[in-house]
Amino acid sequence: MKIVIIGGVAGGASAAARARRLSDQAQIVVLERGDHPSFANCGMPYYVGGEIQSRDKLLVAPIEMLRQRHRLDIRTRSVAIELQRGEKRVRVRDLESGNEYTESYDKLILATGASPVRPPIEGIDGPRVLKLRDLADADAMREHAIGGATRAVVVGAGFIGIEVAENLVRRGIETTIIELDNQLLSPWDREMIAPLESHVRDQGVQVHLSEAAQRFIDSPDGIEIGLQSGASLHADFAVVCVGVRPESGLASQAGLACGPRGGIVVNDHMQTDDPDIYAVGDVTQVSDFVTKMPAQIPLAGPANRQGRIAADHIFDRPSTYRGTQGTAVVGVFGKVAAMTGQSEKALLRDGSRYEKIYIHPTDHAGYYPGAEGMTLKLLFDPDDGAILGAQCVGGKGVEKRIDIIAMAIQADMTVYDLEESELCYAPQFGHAKDPINMAGFVAAGVLRGDQPILHVDSLVDWLHDDSRESPFLLDVRSESEFAAGHVPDATNIPIEQLRERLGQLPRDRPIAAYCKVGQRGYLATRVLLQHGFDVVNLSGGYTLWCRYQHGNA
Amino acid sequence: MKIVIIGGVAGGASAAARARRLSDQAQIVVLERGDHPSFANCGMPYYVGGEIQSRDKLLVAPIEMLRQRHRLDIRTRSVAIELQRGEKRVRVRDLESGNEYTESYDKLILATGASPVRPPIEGIDGPRVLKLRDLADADAMREHAIGGATRAVVVGAGFIGIEVAENLVRRGIETTIIELDNQLLSPWDREMIAPLESHVRDQGVQVHLSEAAQRFIDSPDGIEIGLQSGASLHADFAVVCVGVRPESGLASQAGLACGPRGGIVVNDHMQTDDPDIYAVGDVTQVSDFVTKMPAQIPLAGPANRQGRIAADHIFDRPSTYRGTQGTAVVGVFGKVAAMTGQSEKALLRDGSRYEKIYIHPTDHAGYYPGAEGMTLKLLFDPDDGAILGAQCVGGKGVEKRIDIIAMAIQADMTVYDLEESELCYAPQFGHAKDPINMAGFVAAGVLRGDQPILHVDSLVDWLHDDSRESPFLLDVRSESEFAAGHVPDATNIPIEQLRERLGQLPRDRPIAAYCKVGQRGYLATRVLLQHGFDVVNLSGGYTLWCRYQHGNA
Repeated sequence: MKIVIIGGVAGGASAAARARRLSDQAQIVVLERGDHPSFANCGMPYYVGGEIQSRDKLLVAPIEMLRQRHRLDIRTRSVAIELQRGEKRVRVRDLESGNEYTESYDKLILATGASPVRPPIEGIDGPRVLKLRDLADADAMREHAIGGATRAVVVGAGFIGIEVAENLVRRGIETTIIELDNQLLSPWDREMIAPLESHVRDQGVQVHLSEAAQRFIDSPDGIEIGLQSGASLHADFAVVCVGVRPESGLASQAGLACGPRGGIVVNDHMQTDDPDIYAVGDVTQVSDFVTKMPAQIPLAGPANRQGRIAADHIFDRPSTYRGTQGTAVVGVFGKVAAMTGQSEKALLRDGSRYEKIYIHPTDHAGYYPGAEGMTLKLLFDPDDGAILGAQCVGGKGVEKRIDIIAMAIQADMTVYDLEESELCYAPQFGHAKDPINMAGFVAAGVLRGDQPILHVDSLVDWLHDDSRESPFLLDVRSESEFAAGHVPDATNIPIEQLRERLGQLPRDRPIAAYCKVGQRGYLATRVLLQHGFDVVNLSGGYTLWCRYQHGNA
Repeated sequence: MKIVIIGGVAGGASAAARARRLSDQAQIVVLERGDHPSFANCGMPYYVGGEIQSRDKLLVAPIEMLRQRHRLDIRTRSVAIELQRGEKRVRVRDLESGNEYTESYDKLILATGASPVRPPIEGIDGPRVLKLRDLADADAMREHAIGGATRAVVVGAGFIGIEVAENLVRRGIETTIIELDNQLLSPWDREMIAPLESHVRDQGVQVHLSEAAQRFIDSPDGIEIGLQSGASLHADFAVVCVGVRPESGLASQAGLACGPRGGIVVNDHMQTDDPDIYAVGDVTQVSDFVTKMPAQIPLAGPANRQGRIAADHIFDRPSTYRGTQGTAVVGVFGKVAAMTGQSEKALLRDGSRYEKIYIHPTDHAGYYPGAEGMTLKLLFDPDDGAILGAQCVGGKGVEKRIDIIAMAIQADMTVYDLEESELCYAPQFGHAKDPINMAGFVAAGVLRGDQPILHVDSLVDWLHDDSRESPFLLDVRSESEFAAGHVPDATNIPIEQLRERLGQLPRDRPIAAYCKVGQRGYLATRVLLQHGFDVVNLSGGYTLWCRYQHGNA
């Protein structure tokens, strides 16, 4: 058996190692375009910023180890330039010598990844416009960062853009972010990311949303970035990271089916429509685990598992890929954003039915020092309570909660299961009622009708709708909380006084109760429902109301 | 509806709050023996140690708030002294006045918790022998700790014993631990706790295992603790925390069924055999989620959920309790031990079939600074791969992995599901192949026959068994690793040279390959199997071998 793998990072490296374990006799050729297979691409921004000091650290599996330990025929600086499927061979160019040759295969694995999108912007190929895909890019960016640069512009505020910005700031560089969307980190919902946007600005970063770079004008002492708005920025260098595109040219030229967003179409064994050719990692189109629809989700974990599955299938193992659910985390200047499954915007885009709740817990018991806040948003099916997705933003413990919900999604669990989850508790680690339980209680309470809720976005629409009488806004927080800020036109009756002051509430008009986070609002809703009022609780409370105000500012 | 709740902490408090939300009309009486309902009992050791500085922090739900917000009739320093089930009433003693009275109920909830076991040791009731159950105990211990004490003895190394020891050391007190078992933290398996034992000793704590206190002799300037071994210790005070016992006397006197370990027998609605009487929290006997057998597992999370379920059932909700799986975490001088489900010792005790694997990953990618090691042990059904339990010990990220596996157990997932888990990854948060995936890969590899393993305990037995030829011990680590220490009589062939040196291996004798943690040993096993050798991989590698040597020292 001769296996040729095109691309030696993540999916390709996993496929190679797994194939070797399954067959010590197989001939395994790995063609890698760069100098290093299996390098730590997710670590590159931190190498630029100096958090990872040694470049060697990024070479997670040195070539010599792969050659000796796994007996892989690794050819660096080698590019596959043509698939000759009929002859089952690949045409290869050796970038070092310029020579070309053909290599035959019994099975071929395409692991070519995704390349940074380079929009057709004037001047984008200039020497001061950087990208971050491979180690050479990281070296170049690091050189700029430690070479006396004082100002940088990052175009694109996705994962890599945010990580690059954080690391440039770590180097003391005055950094500006330009993002086409009206929020940072587009995979998350906007109201969830709003507090991070303030946090990023608090670090001294300029953030321009709904803005685009239109030209890069190079000069000996810097670069001018012309913006869509007409303004222009000056910097020592710019970094463009506006997303990635599957590097599937080789496959499509060879007639392999690709999806609308460029990913190679594969079955659940990672096999393309040519049974001798597999594709793994960012170059493939995957099935979304939640919606079962085709999707393009570049992530390292799935790439690694896919590589393993392709190798399994080559050696007649029944492994199958279950689809990608989009579990992701990103560090944002000491804060954390994590998510899994569908976002609300994706559900809206697909016209899916969903319900949502928000809670604002701390990572561990408030009475133990060092507790940090987070906001957790849970999206679920309003009919059966199936969990569709979750997002969490805050400090410590954020990715833990998303990992737990990621497992729940994998297991087709419902919000009712989250109520019953039994998780680790000691005061420095969590809560006797963990945020996961709380999210389950609130969501299940909504579905059972115990807690009718109103969403901030619906309330905003309602308040602007002249055809309907606005709800009576009941703020059940303390008088001092109310005095410090409240929803316009709200009436303050602290929860402790509510039962004595029922006479002050309207019986002919819906009431929207709220508190800071939703808990006292829930109790108020329970009390008022039992006294015959038409009442809902504002989900996420005044905290979330403020987020939306921010988002609309 | 009149509900009387005996006990106002955890389960009792949850039941009261839930009942109020379900019925604003119900009369809810809470009888609490101490001065404070709903105090943070899990925080008490940290209050003693000063990590939690203010006593007020422990009063998580002040009485006034419970009274005003939830309209609970809270009676502190009130003890139920008799259940008069026929009349559906409780006889109550007011500790303040000494008066007694009866209180009628429609529904009664017993949430009396568990009390510290006080073994019949001479002198145990002396003023220098402390316990830690309520705030008065915490106050007393804190007074001792800050009152000039320099030496303390902690009898019992369970959760509370370890937490108390850590906090006495935090106060600069020379601390000695006495434990009857041959390990700290008995719920965990011994080889998992071995490194923590060294860690505790490294903090200056004296640890005496397989040892017991036999008498406490009080004197004006201290206390002498006479040990079973004949030795004696001198200290300023002693703390006895050798476990808890359900405080079910009231229930048993009233003829309610209790289990062999004293817990009140309840159905899955937390109802005792008197349909008008419920029991929740540490006073109940629960069903073990994994084995479905009766168990006595005192934990705060389950207590809270049980309180909620009892209240639900009183108001005709169909909530049911699924059983307790024993998810727990404890901080040990900056390290962490967490577990969920069955331990190996429990499986052995029950005669259950199981298989196990060990891995030694780091919490996040090794190339990103600050990664901390952990050992993860996974116990599973050798037939279908169902997850039976897991234990994890180390630094950061330990409780996250146990929480993830706790969800997997709740969802009846298998080791094959862990292979496919999609979890958060960025280099500072995890791995593209998370420890959870790795545990799944290894366990599934064992079940699929890809990786025959040998356990250290089996190897030790084998080496001592004169009736069988010992295995050929093959150390595939580097020469320098081998030189630094290895299993006696092992032969070193570094994995990189293995294929060239197959001739040096016996074909008529089983081979046990090992490396540091198990990964290179796995590759060696794969290579040798394919070359026709009879080979197994030593699970957990040399790292685990050393643990066992430690344990037997």
